[in-house]
Amino acid sequence: MIKNDLKSYKIKTKKSAELFKKSKKLHVNGVHHNIRFFEPYPFITKSSSGKFLIDVDSNKYVDYWMGHWSLILGHSPKNVRTNVRMQLDNGWIHGTVSKNSIDLSEKISKAVPVAEKIRYASTGTEATMYAVRLARTITKRKTIAKIDGGWHGYTTDLLKTINWPFHKSESSGLTDEKHIISLPYNNLEKSVKILKTKKNDLAAIIIEPVLGGGGCIPATREYLLGIQEFCHKNNILFILDEIVTGFRFRFGCLYNTMKLDPDLVTLGKIVGGGFPIGVICGKNELMKYASTSIFSKTDRAYIGGGTFSANPLTMMAGSTMLTTIKNKGNLLYKKLNSFGIETRKMLDKKFGGSVITTGIGSLFLTHFLSDSTYEINNAADAAKCNIKKLHDYHFHMIAKDGIFFLPGKLGAFSDVHTKSDIANLAKSTDEFLTKFKK
Amino acid sequence: MIKNDLKSYKIKTKKSAELFKKSKKLHVNGVHHNIRFFEPYPFITKSSSGKFLIDVDSNKYVDYWMGHWSLILGHSPKNVRTNVRMQLDNGWIHGTVSKNSIDLSEKISKAVPVAEKIRYASTGTEATMYAVRLARTITKRKTIAKIDGGWHGYTTDLLKTINWPFHKSESSGLTDEKHIISLPYNNLEKSVKILKTKKNDLAAIIIEPVLGGGGCIPATREYLLGIQEFCHKNNILFILDEIVTGFRFRFGCLYNTMKLDPDLVTLGKIVGGGFPIGVICGKNELMKYASTSIFSKTDRAYIGGGTFSANPLTMMAGSTMLTTIKNKGNLLYKKLNSFGIETRKMLDKKFGGSVITTGIGSLFLTHFLSDSTYEINNAADAAKCNIKKLHDYHFHMIAKDGIFFLPGKLGAFSDVHTKSDIANLAKSTDEFLTKFKK
Repeated sequence: MIKNDLKSYKIKTKKSAELFKKSKKLHVNGVHHNIRFFEPYPFITKSSSGKFLIDVDSNKYVDYWMGHWSLILGHSPKNVRTNVRMQLDNGWIHGTVSKNSIDLSEKISKAVPVAEKIRYASTGTEATMYAVRLARTITKRKTIAKIDGGWHGYTTDLLKTINWPFHKSESSGLTDEKHIISLPYNNLEKSVKILKTKKNDLAAIIIEPVLGGGGCIPATREYLLGIQEFCHKNNILFILDEIVTGFRFRFGCLYNTMKLDPDLVTLGKIVGGGFPIGVICGKNELMKYASTSIFSKTDRAYIGGGTFSANPLTMMAGSTMLTTIKNKGNLLYKKLNSFGIETRKMLDKKFGGSVITTGIGSLFLTHFLSDSTYEINNAADAAKCNIKKLHDYHFHMIAKDGIFFLPGKLGAFSDVHTKSDIANLAKSTDEFLTKFKK
Repeated sequence: MIKNDLKSYKIKTKKSAELFKKSKKLHVNGVHHNIRFFEPYPFITKSSSGKFLIDVDSNKYVDYWMGHWSLILGHSPKNVRTNVRMQLDNGWIHGTVSKNSIDLSEKISKAVPVAEKIRYASTGTEATMYAVRLARTITKRKTIAKIDGGWHGYTTDLLKTINWPFHKSESSGLTDEKHIISLPYNNLEKSVKILKTKKNDLAAIIIEPVLGGGGCIPATREYLLGIQEFCHKNNILFILDEIVTGFRFRFGCLYNTMKLDPDLVTLGKIVGGGFPIGVICGKNELMKYASTSIFSKTDRAYIGGGTFSANPLTMMAGSTMLTTIKNKGNLLYKKLNSFGIETRKMLDKKFGGSVITTGIGSLFLTHFLSDSTYEINNAADAAKCNIKKLHDYHFHMIAKDGIFFLPGKLGAFSDVHTKSDIANLAKSTDEFLTKFKK
């Protein structure tokens, strides 16, 4: 960490330092999601509004983390807030079927053709767990293939090859990792070779069309088409995890733009308006395997659900979010995507070949190349970059310029960001470069 | 189903019937949690307030389901609503450490001695998954023991022996059921016999002190003490799942009243004020195995977390809920517990030996005895009862008297219920008995 930045941060976050001590007493590592910790201590957020996070010392940060990239319209957008406020008076948990879930599903199913049937869970972790269970039920096979560096939440069924080094177990206490195999992203030849070794027991391949936690790396169309072809030939389900990418680049999923034909899709984040949600959707003929009216308990996939599933508040937030996005029309995505393009170009230019800024549309992440990396095509490439320098860069922006990326993680433009924010990013990057060269 | 009740229900729920058709088109079985479906179709809730659910045909139901038993103060209690409303303006997802989680944890840790360290997830399903993963990490063992009929959410790691018949798999698509063994509730001798067969590989035993979904059956203190003793003797972790029971009978957990000493406790429902939450808490020396600062990735338990974990809205709702309950003092629990006692007695008397109403405190469920059952000590006893009659009974109250129990599930008194509600329960039961005898 750059000494000067550390000093500045400590001076301006004194109350956070105190409160984080308290948080560490009460909570493991002081946080509730490992990635939320960063050195020397994360600031404590007091509130968020529009494009800002405001900490307990009243520092303001222009936020590019945006609620784990859920908040495509920024913090607390007015329409969502108004309708959620109204919903509070009508109850936040009914525990029964509510009209709000029908409203949200009508919107999703129109925008996402594969969503012939939808089931809501409360988190992405649950949604991917249910997708895997459903795939195993349908195919009567056990093995699931995922991507090196692919992140589908904390579910036991997919907890493998997430963090570098991928060959090392992600956690102690797992008992069934042998049923997960893992593929190198964007390398079709090697992936197919691995898939062939298990092809008779393969239930599904699950892929993020843009590797999110693994380094903001888009899949090539050729790769996804190749994987899909392998799936179709071998009766394997093709699952796209669009929790990050759904409604991020267009009003619908990314897969449509690539003319892909996934069997199941998982959604989350944006479609819940920032409220807890996980969605599993797919074709009728597949989703029916979750039905209790057709199958006995041993033959169906027992998928959630849960106490908070389809709660009327989340459903209202999601539904309002989608309506608001839709009303903004194509202008919204045009703006966000152009901000992304401009920023990636600007950063690559500033760093003059020492970084590659990956991403697509409104998502971007700057990888500091090390001696052995020239391209960023997969999570292994990203992991071999200078991760420490990336953290220093993000921390510099936090400490000096009130710009917040969760250190090491990709940034996302939202509707509340403006051209001047890009200029400020450029300025802060210039300052970092000056120090960095010293 | 009683013909007359069915007719009445269909007449008064015409809009629900139409909307449920829509819901079935969009959603598997029309619901997002299998148990929310009941014949001929569940009504569609428009809003909830205080003790009422109001459906789209404007029927009002006195609610005993109470948001899967989360709402101990009824729907949308004023204090919680006010503070949540305020929090909406300060952001509903920060994606960073927020002060609100510290506030809630301070309250929980004071009331629940074992909660030396706390980590928030977004659902009970996640909390129990993390508890199991943590236990396996700590003990370096694989087997988990649960209870026949024990329900800990949809997590893969505990999806066994939930619904009768217990020997049949709960779902297709499971790959690791062999690491779960199951015990007959309240039968210490048989339980210990089963435990002994696996004792060298047993990581943990997880138990609800009151079997919730399995039939509203309290564990005897002797049983829990015996299980705890077996755990302590054999270095097995003793996990109490207090998601339903935490803050339900007193300001804290049920285990304290029994002088038990669990290693880990899971919480949910009430502590989130009806907002999505799951909590895993335990002793410092155990929770530390989730720490990323002490252990490498292969040696620690990788537990959540997730996008929505510890979101400031849930934290605010939970924190306000606990403060409000605390301010009500012992009077609240005294009232709720006495309502429960009175109702169990009343129902048993009315049915004159043909039912046993199980429960404790504010929780109760009426089991219609069949020829082979005389006692309800475990989920097998409950499953052998006349389940159809129980559904008919609950449906009768829905159709004729605007009283809502989720058919087949236990009822919970909340602070908004009054003596007159008990009288109405009695009256509706009398009517049912009249028909029933015909």
